[in-house]
Amino acid sequence: MDDELFMEEALKEAYKAYEIDEVPVGAVIVRNGQIVGRGYNQKETMKDATLHAEISAVKDACANLGGWRLSNCTMYVTLEPCTMCAGALVNARIQRLVIGVRDLKTGACGSVFNIVQSEKLNHQIDVQFGVLEEDCSGTLKNFFKKLRNS
Amino acid sequence: MDDELFMEEALKEAYKAYEIDEVPVGAVIVRNGQIVGRGYNQKETMKDATLHAEISAVKDACANLGGWRLSNCTMYVTLEPCTMCAGALVNARIQRLVIGVRDLKTGACGSVFNIVQSEKLNHQIDVQFGVLEEDCSGTLKNFFKKLRNS
Repeated sequence: MDDELFMEEALKEAYKAYEIDEVPVGAVIVRNGQIVGRGYNQKETMKDATLHAEISAVKDACANLGGWRLSNCTMYVTLEPCTMCAGALVNARIQRLVIGVRDLKTGACGSVFNIVQSEKLNHQIDVQFGVLEEDCSGTLKNFFKKLRNS
Repeated sequence: MDDELFMEEALKEAYKAYEIDEVPVGAVIVRNGQIVGRGYNQKETMKDATLHAEISAVKDACANLGGWRLSNCTMYVTLEPCTMCAGALVNARIQRLVIGVRDLKTGACGSVFNIVQSEKLNHQIDVQFGVLEEDCSGTLKNFFKKLRNS
């Protein structure tokens, strides 16, 4: 199934974060069956509060597509986006959002807030949870286990 | 008064956006009375949905201070931040936020949402509205008047 294939690609991005001791979150953006943007969390490495996986993937897709509107695009992300990232997806007019695992502390796509489906804003995003949920969750659990043992 | 002096600096950033036909929003970040970050809206010019004034200012301050935590920093911004930018300010642990004019359509600091003062997140920001409000509002009105007449 395509959704699982693209979430595997998001997981590959998450592993890049894992390898450099960042909280392992990865994202890809897909249009017409092609990956047009990739990103992984680099907040600590780059010392930049904005460099979550989703922001990097949006910037990459905007650069590759030559515009700020990511209409007809789907984002696959291993962890539910926070308010910053959810707001970026609305601003970029992302059409669909596929999420691996919920973030019950900061998730802004249904768990703590729901920014991406709010009728108060001028754009709403279709959201699907739970694609490769165990893999996405396991990657995070392994990371925090490694962190505690280091 | 210091708040007005720093909002003048944010307005200077907004004028940079105005000059390149971007919606004129500007921001500066201040720590210990010194400007440590500046930004203006470059979304259209850079074809990047994330390049609001506040995101650029946060990235600039993180680079200048050498870390993603902007504790003890105040942001001065001419227009109320959207959800993306409000989330970035929470993520960066900004202490205080001074806003020129409300954004009744997308403002996420009290007007449409209140992300920066939500008890659901692990950081809350002191917010003050209305510093140089007429200047900030006038800059936006002039821009949209110019746009209509072009």
